[in-house]
Amino acid sequence: MSFSYQLQATDGAARAGTLSTAHGDVPTPTFMAVGTAGTVKAMTADAVRATGAKIVLGNTYHLMLRPTAERVARLGGLHKLMDWPGPILTDSGGFQVMSLAKLRKMDEAGVTFRSHIDGSKHHLSPERSTEIQYLLDATITMVLDECTPHPATHEEAAKSMQLTTRWARRSRAAFTPRQGYGQFGIVQGSTYADLRRDSAAALTDLDFEGYAIGGLAVGEGQAMMFAMLEITGPLLPAQKPRYLMGVGTPDDLLGSIARGVDMFDCVMPTRAGRTARAFTSAGIFNLRNARFIDDDTPLDPHCGCLACSRHSRAYLHHLFRCEEMLGPILLTQHNLTYYQSLMQGARAAILEQNYLQYCANVRAGWNSVIPREGGGSTTS
Amino acid sequence: MSFSYQLQATDGAARAGTLSTAHGDVPTPTFMAVGTAGTVKAMTADAVRATGAKIVLGNTYHLMLRPTAERVARLGGLHKLMDWPGPILTDSGGFQVMSLAKLRKMDEAGVTFRSHIDGSKHHLSPERSTEIQYLLDATITMVLDECTPHPATHEEAAKSMQLTTRWARRSRAAFTPRQGYGQFGIVQGSTYADLRRDSAAALTDLDFEGYAIGGLAVGEGQAMMFAMLEITGPLLPAQKPRYLMGVGTPDDLLGSIARGVDMFDCVMPTRAGRTARAFTSAGIFNLRNARFIDDDTPLDPHCGCLACSRHSRAYLHHLFRCEEMLGPILLTQHNLTYYQSLMQGARAAILEQNYLQYCANVRAGWNSVIPREGGGSTTS
Repeated sequence: MSFSYQLQATDGAARAGTLSTAHGDVPTPTFMAVGTAGTVKAMTADAVRATGAKIVLGNTYHLMLRPTAERVARLGGLHKLMDWPGPILTDSGGFQVMSLAKLRKMDEAGVTFRSHIDGSKHHLSPERSTEIQYLLDATITMVLDECTPHPATHEEAAKSMQLTTRWARRSRAAFTPRQGYGQFGIVQGSTYADLRRDSAAALTDLDFEGYAIGGLAVGEGQAMMFAMLEITGPLLPAQKPRYLMGVGTPDDLLGSIARGVDMFDCVMPTRAGRTARAFTSAGIFNLRNARFIDDDTPLDPHCGCLACSRHSRAYLHHLFRCEEMLGPILLTQHNLTYYQSLMQGARAAILEQNYLQYCANVRAGWNSVIPREGGGSTTS
Repeated sequence: MSFSYQLQATDGAARAGTLSTAHGDVPTPTFMAVGTAGTVKAMTADAVRATGAKIVLGNTYHLMLRPTAERVARLGGLHKLMDWPGPILTDSGGFQVMSLAKLRKMDEAGVTFRSHIDGSKHHLSPERSTEIQYLLDATITMVLDECTPHPATHEEAAKSMQLTTRWARRSRAAFTPRQGYGQFGIVQGSTYADLRRDSAAALTDLDFEGYAIGGLAVGEGQAMMFAMLEITGPLLPAQKPRYLMGVGTPDDLLGSIARGVDMFDCVMPTRAGRTARAFTSAGIFNLRNARFIDDDTPLDPHCGCLACSRHSRAYLHHLFRCEEMLGPILLTQHNLTYYQSLMQGARAAILEQNYLQYCANVRAGWNSVIPREGGGSTTS
């Protein structure tokens, strides 16, 4: 089984395809549930499967600290550990080192930091990040990159992107090719079209199995993010998957698919589920709101998940009011199901050459504009 | 469908039977998972069913405060609300008023108290407790009683038991008979054989559908608890179910079944599951213990639950170490499954007239004595 992406249909720039891996196939567009420390928070693996998820994401930063990559390898790899025989993508660890770790020191070699948990000292280099992901048995390995902060001057962004490019080369050299496994490069370049072009060109020379678009959804706004996708998409090989990292709201996903993105990950549906926020076909609800106290209707009548098919909004409200764990459990399952159904609907529409109409229908269902975290418009 | 108990076999004083109710049958001995506020903590209703549970318990005190009995009734009853069409037993609320509520004032009429949540004022009388349980649609309603504190003098215990008897009469008068629904009286009398006898005699005169034994497991020790069961059991009608309230460890359950108890409830398996303590065929483990960090074996090789069939001790240890919700979720499911399998094994052994051997085999499996909360020996 070789690692491959089969493009099955396009509708404008939107793509429907199938990613084939050593751990199974993934129809695209796809949303990867985030399984930070070897578990999608509040979910059993069966519950994750029930949402329709085909691939999950693991965080190298968290896993290298606990239980450690070497221990995961001794225990048979991340698939076995978390009861997820399907594909797993792991990030490089770089993003969370920058956002979570203490006393970071970055240079050409890599980044030295102290754990946010116990202050222990660690080093992450392109080679070590790649080795960790090998030990975790990641189906898809990400190169170590620097997620350029926003805003950045052209000079800062160029310098950062060039470091990412050099690290991508070292990550590629450190990667152990295995049948059905792949490694993705990460396009950086901030909000500068010329840098995005340079980055894409340098990375495609390294012939990765797929390409991520990084450094977006960091405060630049949805319109700028979409503009960068429009520039970057055509620079990437059509027969390789494209992954937009850390995005986003349902509206972000629809607009990004329209611009050629195949894969997404985001903590939004899981994190929102733990804080009583529900993504539904009628928009976003906060289930702590007192207006749900006597609401005997299902959260989303168009959803077949456990929360919607067996319980009322009043019950979900009650659970959050009492701080019962079942509230986060049911709402995480709902939100992930909603995200997966959005992906399934998008894929079906692309296959039927009907994607723009699908987006219009979905958006019409939302009672109000769903605000993107950090603002931004909702134009497609 | 009438509410009935069919005694199918006895082995010594141990009993195997079937409780038939409006909401389905319950093979006995049975353990009722505690669903405090309309949810068995950390469990979906499907997960509770997967443990083998046939009946769950709801707490009147918690439910009368949130979401309130009237609201539960408007929302279609507790069965519908929590997706549990099976039998539900509710307690009277009295025990938790005494242990949780603020500024309690008790008199002949009942008890006035302030909510531990928001300080709001409430009144619970035998009539109101019975009405609340009616509104909740409890399959089995408990009479309001006073759980006599331990230790108590003979005079204190007598006075308390007599109040419970008067309240039982008022609760019985307030109960609305419905096909397949029942109401249980509660035998009190502290550690005094004569008071237990008086209590049982007065209650059986009221002809309840079942009888609970209350005021035990409150610090008197296992030996005294067993002695009281030996005195009380023969005083109760053989064709009615017997429920030992708030008990206990696996060893308590084995010993109590040997003394004629049919039904149990306890927060122990669920609470322990949230704090990393596992009940297993080899005894009690604390999964936070560092000795599990590299332990690739199943928690309990004799258990078929999700935690044991899909994951390792090392993974469970990791989840608790990272404070991931999946730790409590998986371990609660395991502990409840262990309790249910203990009940299933006991029932099968009683039907085969082999109960003492079953107890000996189970106890031999425990590496060490499983201490009962609050001490006590482990003699059968």
